[in-house]
Amino acid sequence: MKKRLFTPGPTTVPESVLLKMAEPIIHHRSAEYSELFAQINKGLKYLFQTENDVLTFTSSGTGAMEAAVVNLLSPGDRALVVRGGKFGERWAEICLAYGVQVEPVDVEWGYAVEPQQIAAKLQSIPEIKAVFTTHSETSTGVINDIETIGQIVKQHPALLVVDVITSIGTHRLLPDQWHIDVAVAGSQKGLMLPPGLAFASVSQKAWEAAESSKLPKYYWSFSAAKKSLAKNQNPYTPAVSLLVGLKKSLEIIQEEGLEKVWARHQRHARATRAAVRAMGLELFAKNPSNILTIVKIPEGIDGKLLLKTIGTKYGVTMAGGQAALAGKVVRISHMGYTDDFDILTAVAALERGLKDLGWHFELGSGVAAAQRVLTEENGREL
Amino acid sequence: MKKRLFTPGPTTVPESVLLKMAEPIIHHRSAEYSELFAQINKGLKYLFQTENDVLTFTSSGTGAMEAAVVNLLSPGDRALVVRGGKFGERWAEICLAYGVQVEPVDVEWGYAVEPQQIAAKLQSIPEIKAVFTTHSETSTGVINDIETIGQIVKQHPALLVVDVITSIGTHRLLPDQWHIDVAVAGSQKGLMLPPGLAFASVSQKAWEAAESSKLPKYYWSFSAAKKSLAKNQNPYTPAVSLLVGLKKSLEIIQEEGLEKVWARHQRHARATRAAVRAMGLELFAKNPSNILTIVKIPEGIDGKLLLKTIGTKYGVTMAGGQAALAGKVVRISHMGYTDDFDILTAVAALERGLKDLGWHFELGSGVAAAQRVLTEENGREL
Repeated sequence: MKKRLFTPGPTTVPESVLLKMAEPIIHHRSAEYSELFAQINKGLKYLFQTENDVLTFTSSGTGAMEAAVVNLLSPGDRALVVRGGKFGERWAEICLAYGVQVEPVDVEWGYAVEPQQIAAKLQSIPEIKAVFTTHSETSTGVINDIETIGQIVKQHPALLVVDVITSIGTHRLLPDQWHIDVAVAGSQKGLMLPPGLAFASVSQKAWEAAESSKLPKYYWSFSAAKKSLAKNQNPYTPAVSLLVGLKKSLEIIQEEGLEKVWARHQRHARATRAAVRAMGLELFAKNPSNILTIVKIPEGIDGKLLLKTIGTKYGVTMAGGQAALAGKVVRISHMGYTDDFDILTAVAALERGLKDLGWHFELGSGVAAAQRVLTEENGREL
Repeated sequence: MKKRLFTPGPTTVPESVLLKMAEPIIHHRSAEYSELFAQINKGLKYLFQTENDVLTFTSSGTGAMEAAVVNLLSPGDRALVVRGGKFGERWAEICLAYGVQVEPVDVEWGYAVEPQQIAAKLQSIPEIKAVFTTHSETSTGVINDIETIGQIVKQHPALLVVDVITSIGTHRLLPDQWHIDVAVAGSQKGLMLPPGLAFASVSQKAWEAAESSKLPKYYWSFSAAKKSLAKNQNPYTPAVSLLVGLKKSLEIIQEEGLEKVWARHQRHARATRAAVRAMGLELFAKNPSNILTIVKIPEGIDGKLLLKTIGTKYGVTMAGGQAALAGKVVRISHMGYTDDFDILTAVAALERGLKDLGWHFELGSGVAAAQRVLTEENGREL
């Protein structure tokens, strides 16, 4: 049976990238590697649309989140954390683990944060050193308005640190224009790579904060990474094979062009949403991201059985809900190496799974709706 | 030109492992992944010859070193650190970054630590909470006598933490029998994988210490890893493709059998050492490891040019010296996916490079000496 992955990370890795990573491995302390890493670093600046350094870590995305906290702050510092999903909560957990005082802005799951809440919090607690938030919250399918948040935070001494793990290379994102000080990303999402690499772009303002940061750090040290970066090297042995793949995946993105990559994801999200609605299903996110579509499982349908059916009978892997949403939603990713026909496949598999479980709807309504959106000139949503 | 890697990590990845990792990626929050990780965890216990948990991290080996420090200690704790090379020094750097007081046992580069020095230090400073040392010091080519050190440390409340990054799956190593509390390893050495995974075995005594440790931790948390391990999962997205490769490489090791793997490395080390001596060259290490052979570059020969010649003219990559040894030695790894003919190739390339640079010796003396050792019944050293 053909296997297809529609999970929000890891996402499908293009065949050309898989084959590149299967070439004989090279040694990292070599001119050949430094040349490769130099090209990667150029590509990362394009991907991040930034003039700032982009640092690379061998870790999950969570590692780069921890790196941001430990390089920017000192014990007892106060940090605003937007908690509107599992990944926003992770910022708070990391801060607390390091003795950073969390000033939460709590947001109901499924909703975007209201930028004015951040403005109000910054005004009432001027000591806040950093604002930690999430661009695309993968647990809720919500996109936050980082552009507006950036306008607010830049009027304040606080740093703006954004988890762009799922939005980089998928969603319109302009870290420099939006005044993001540190954007953290991972390899297994829009970059179409296996997990194992994480990234952090670091602004001048963030470098200045890093100089006075007193939290302990070694592996995550921004300054160690920067020192090595000057020689196109890494402080510790990097995940060489993933970096070889990264060079290729950055080339794929550059060839398509970021604007087109963003537009494709938007079109695919619109088609998926239209399909879901046409089938009589409900979306979970009120401010849906273009990265994944979260569908509420209708009354009377066993969510876990639905995912299992779609997976084992049709070879299509989607993700279930996390934390409070476990068993209640299906998360369909349209991230990375995805074309129009993949979207139809995902919708078709969802239709068949729901039919098998006895949900009443017009079979084919989903794929037809998706097909209409996908073939519209501008991909307008129905 | 055929390219061949004799560097002490990354080491050559077997073709079967490369192809396994090039298969379509799977999602980690799935029964399929948990089944894979369960098999890996069994294989890791065999590799580590331990009944203890072996935790897996997505990072370089340095990450697991940092994990050992932050999970076992508290600020102000005193730790004995054996500094006999770059990697011993790294233990000290990590301790210092976290406010742990370093009680150094300094060893001249090229020599093994004298276990009695550790005994004396533990006796004079009974507050020492942990002993950090290195099994095979890759910067000096030295093997330390961890078995004897284990006998000493077990009579003391201190924990024994050993960097086995290059010795796991290459050198005789029995963490449980030798009373190692935490052994940290990496993927890109004897495991014949690309870099990106790190491991830590954790003894009961170490778990007890972890409970009272007050150093901050999140990504490196042993307890978070253990909690996930119970469900054959990881706390954060693991490097899935490397883990798929790990399952295969563990199978390769289990098929050969650890005893035979160790004997092969020993035989290859003996052959390489015999070759080097036959060519009139000198070894750097007084207590040489079986993992890599470090050769002093003879007077009048430009070390960097020698490595460059061997690399560009013959496609053979060896490593130079680190820190104070830069330009002064050649490091030839015989680690991992290496057979007898690879050893002859390495020696032959070294011979040709030296000849090109005008070193006077009997051409063929190295390969002949290696060939003799490799074909002896018991691989005795000449």
